[in-house]
Amino acid sequence: MKLLQKIIHILKERKLTISLAESCTGGYTSYLLTKIPGSSAVFKGSVVVYSMEAKKIFLGIPHSLLKNTPGVSKDVCIMLAKNIRNILSTDLGASIVGFAGPTSKKGVPVGTIFISIADKNSADVKKLIIKGDRDKIRKKASNFLIRLIHNKVKKYNLKSLT
Amino acid sequence: MKLLQKIIHILKERKLTISLAESCTGGYTSYLLTKIPGSSAVFKGSVVVYSMEAKKIFLGIPHSLLKNTPGVSKDVCIMLAKNIRNILSTDLGASIVGFAGPTSKKGVPVGTIFISIADKNSADVKKLIIKGDRDKIRKKASNFLIRLIHNKVKKYNLKSLT
Repeated sequence: MKLLQKIIHILKERKLTISLAESCTGGYTSYLLTKIPGSSAVFKGSVVVYSMEAKKIFLGIPHSLLKNTPGVSKDVCIMLAKNIRNILSTDLGASIVGFAGPTSKKGVPVGTIFISIADKNSADVKKLIIKGDRDKIRKKASNFLIRLIHNKVKKYNLKSLT
Repeated sequence: MKLLQKIIHILKERKLTISLAESCTGGYTSYLLTKIPGSSAVFKGSVVVYSMEAKKIFLGIPHSLLKNTPGVSKDVCIMLAKNIRNILSTDLGASIVGFAGPTSKKGVPVGTIFISIADKNSADVKKLIIKGDRDKIRKKASNFLIRLIHNKVKKYNLKSLT
């Protein structure tokens, strides 16, 4: 909760906005960010891209990028972060894709997660392997994304935004 | 959890799909539905429309409908359910809008929530007044929407879909 409050506080103070695209976490990261009163000043929205269709229709992810990896790859994750940022015109865009199980798909092990955060200059991406049951994987994955967002926003100063 | 399992089970069995549009609950209802393994077969995705921009850009809600009610009204709720259903081509579309507080906006009391579910023929909508703190209101509101979805899907039989 403290990390969430810090993120919202820093974003508010620096007049920055954020948006999300979530797959395996099903909206849990958005729920966490919006737990904080006043988060609506900085959080513009998110898309839970729980299907290929949603990734294509809402975030413009091309079929060619999705077909071999069932939506779970470094490239898809980066593109989701960049595209949600562009579409909602926010300063930051963050994303998460992965498999929370219980079964793996196309040879990608359960617990394989990618998280990304993009600003206007670049996008960072990380691969995680998380152990546990479906709910644990999803909650841990969301918390990793929250930490990635916090690491990004704490580095910001007004100068770096111009 | 049992209600969630029943919803996913019925939808799977009847080959029906569902999508959501959430405002005040910030993605919590989507998180609940996707707790169930195999939910990806029936849940196509959702949009957390936490700003006017998100309601316009992703769900095509016109400015004229938003300007007097900060996005919280029966009409906005119905349109969100209908539009997410159309955009993701799902059998059902459900939505939730409201104020979880801690402060009220434009004279709409904290805890005022609308929930809606649409199929190809019609849309049902309900107004709720929920008491409690921000997190309680959001969780209760999500659970009311889950119940509304369950009430809808349990009535379905294959015949009624044709």
